[in-house]
Amino acid sequence: MMKVRRIERIVALTKMLVDMPGRLFSLSHFSNLFGAAKSTLSEDMVTIKEAMQQFGLGTLETVSGAAGGVRFIPHRSDQAVNNLLLELAGKLAEPERIIQGGFLYMTDILFNPALMVQIGEIFRRQLGHLAPDYIMTVETKGIPLALMTARAFDLPLVIVRQGNKVTEGPAVSINYVTGSSKRIQTMSLPRRAIQAGAKVLVIDDFMKAGGTARGMIDLAGEVGVEVVGTGVLVATAEPAQKLVQDYLALLILHDVDQYSKKIDIRPAL
Amino acid sequence: MMKVRRIERIVALTKMLVDMPGRLFSLSHFSNLFGAAKSTLSEDMVTIKEAMQQFGLGTLETVSGAAGGVRFIPHRSDQAVNNLLLELAGKLAEPERIIQGGFLYMTDILFNPALMVQIGEIFRRQLGHLAPDYIMTVETKGIPLALMTARAFDLPLVIVRQGNKVTEGPAVSINYVTGSSKRIQTMSLPRRAIQAGAKVLVIDDFMKAGGTARGMIDLAGEVGVEVVGTGVLVATAEPAQKLVQDYLALLILHDVDQYSKKIDIRPAL
Repeated sequence: MMKVRRIERIVALTKMLVDMPGRLFSLSHFSNLFGAAKSTLSEDMVTIKEAMQQFGLGTLETVSGAAGGVRFIPHRSDQAVNNLLLELAGKLAEPERIIQGGFLYMTDILFNPALMVQIGEIFRRQLGHLAPDYIMTVETKGIPLALMTARAFDLPLVIVRQGNKVTEGPAVSINYVTGSSKRIQTMSLPRRAIQAGAKVLVIDDFMKAGGTARGMIDLAGEVGVEVVGTGVLVATAEPAQKLVQDYLALLILHDVDQYSKKIDIRPAL
Repeated sequence: MMKVRRIERIVALTKMLVDMPGRLFSLSHFSNLFGAAKSTLSEDMVTIKEAMQQFGLGTLETVSGAAGGVRFIPHRSDQAVNNLLLELAGKLAEPERIIQGGFLYMTDILFNPALMVQIGEIFRRQLGHLAPDYIMTVETKGIPLALMTARAFDLPLVIVRQGNKVTEGPAVSINYVTGSSKRIQTMSLPRRAIQAGAKVLVIDDFMKAGGTARGMIDLAGEVGVEVVGTGVLVATAEPAQKLVQDYLALLILHDVDQYSKKIDIRPAL
């Protein structure tokens, strides 16, 4: 325990809270760490909360009671969200992204940690009310996005594997048909990855017909967990009728023209 | 632009810097945002830096010149690193983690975002001097760890794929032999994922014989990039002679005894 200046304590508190968004810290924890009274720390929290709100950076949520404490909830203003999605749409519309077969190269964006942190926080903002226990995705390209969403929620990530992997013990598998290639594939989930009865939010990078998301929902049913929502970074406008009824897409891909090299992609929020 | 109290500005600055570790922010950027003089902001940075250092949370690095600015470098004390690795070793030694075949179930730890943020920052601390341009891993289980390492470095992630995937354009492939199963497998890297001449840090969750890491190094050679280092969360003590000469392991797995259910795993730092 050490005595410190208020401003330095507030910097340290801000760092610790921001580092683990959604994580509940007890005031006793900070009281031990800084040798400060809980009443003093409460005042610090008010200051931090006001500053976060003033700049639209998030807020602090206080949970009262014995198991209570304080946690940082990241936030982005409508305008900040819109700017980010417009910027992303602009990047994704670059003609050199078109790959043989009318696919769009998105990997550089999907594997950019700083961008995915922000997208994860947008999913937290839009879908936080669903109160999931796990974030679920299927390997591979959606993993960074799903992981950063899990971070924004302070929840564990569950990754559905393609095929059966030997190193994770007993698994439940289903066959599903991908909407794009119309091939039958297998996806599986290790039994011990998730507790029966849990609520799951499915996050993926891309949805066309929705076959993969549908597969995850069916697989979740097989292991006794409930899918409370689905969020994707990009959904195609066509087919309008997808295999998943309720989903949130941040961007809608209206058209990829392989001949004129025009890509029409727009924010959906 | 708005006039704000110093303490609120410092909270907001701390949040923005901590949110993107390794990212260089110009003082002009903050000057526009807060309507404060650069000299004022410089004083704020001194306060933030002192607070971070006082509590062993990291530091601010100042880069001078026209392209200069300030960035947050996360840090953990030797003791904090040791405590985290001891805690991890304790979790990984739980007997119920043993899977048929002598494998260790690690997925719940590998897919825990808050834990992986910390491990990523340890890799940044231990391997930052290698100054890579990219973090590279192979799908699937090492991705969260590699992504959080990329976040700590503020670098893009490159994911080597197993087999050939259609949606990422032309790719370079090699065959490699996994040390554990002795099977020949294929791994591939999309041509456009990485620039020739770049320096790459390989990050993975587990190393036994080192066949997978060796494969990534060979594949990197094929696409004209240099592997400057390899970091793994867990390496087995045996075989002592691995296919990769130089690597950093955070934990060493000495023994998994399927009969007595004893797991011997220890921090390596």
